[in-house]
Amino acid sequence: MTTITNRTYDELEIGESCERVHTISEDDLQMFAAVSGDHNPLHLNAEYAATTPFKQQIAHGMYSGALISATFAMELPGPGTIYMGQNIQFKRPIFIGDTITVILTVKEKRDRKKEVIFDTTIKNQNGKVVVAGEATVIAPTEKVTVSLSNLPTIQLGNHAYDAE
Amino acid sequence: MTTITNRTYDELEIGESCERVHTISEDDLQMFAAVSGDHNPLHLNAEYAATTPFKQQIAHGMYSGALISATFAMELPGPGTIYMGQNIQFKRPIFIGDTITVILTVKEKRDRKKEVIFDTTIKNQNGKVVVAGEATVIAPTEKVTVSLSNLPTIQLGNHAYDAE
Repeated sequence: MTTITNRTYDELEIGESCERVHTISEDDLQMFAAVSGDHNPLHLNAEYAATTPFKQQIAHGMYSGALISATFAMELPGPGTIYMGQNIQFKRPIFIGDTITVILTVKEKRDRKKEVIFDTTIKNQNGKVVVAGEATVIAPTEKVTVSLSNLPTIQLGNHAYDAE
Repeated sequence: MTTITNRTYDELEIGESCERVHTISEDDLQMFAAVSGDHNPLHLNAEYAATTPFKQQIAHGMYSGALISATFAMELPGPGTIYMGQNIQFKRPIFIGDTITVILTVKEKRDRKKEVIFDTTIKNQNGKVVVAGEATVIAPTEKVTVSLSNLPTIQLGNHAYDAE
């Protein structure tokens, strides 16, 4: 069974960061369409998307938000983190096949409420910032290790969805 | 085939709003876990969640963001909207079985760039604000009707995922 361990408020240092890399697949867009309810053809239909200013299918903006939130939950600070708020700016489109890097960096610690302000940036494979913003979380005060739940088995059309 | 029609920048009026109602299922949490990569037991494991301050499984915070973004894309202003940014505060947890209402309200129009500032609020079935915030979008200038793409057929474990 896979486990993950958090970083506590006291352990976090200003300037500390973590990165998560993900390559965007068409399946990701289909899955995000299903779970959000946004099935506009700009995200799902290559022929339609070719007629738009973007020229090709783009990922839903808030799919980036989902990846940022998961990086807080899984990596830094990890289990026990309470997500209080996020400010997110969508700077450039993300296309199928792009390899993006989510970068979370500790900017500020507020001792009274154990709040931590993180810079949240996503860059694409060309080093361009596609998403900018910052988040406020309450960091865990106790060191914990949790056993991750298994991801469900998902069949998308006629093939398995690879959740990782 | 289902079509949707947008509201253009010129048509939008200050104070105009739209609502989207959704009841949260355990399947929604499983799907969001898969697409985001956050499979912490707080969201997926009832026994574990019972040991946390929340006492039961809670929806991923950014699942709310996904529902807000889909409401912009599907309802107001709809097709052609460009999502520029979102500020979101997670005020209260959302539990399985909660019926939440996403409410988007036009707050401000900025003619030069055709930007519209929306208030974005989510309330639960008790009328409590669970999510607050605001968004900036560029509203479409041309009236368009688009044909929605079909949602994929998704099998979650041994049953179909109902995407609506």
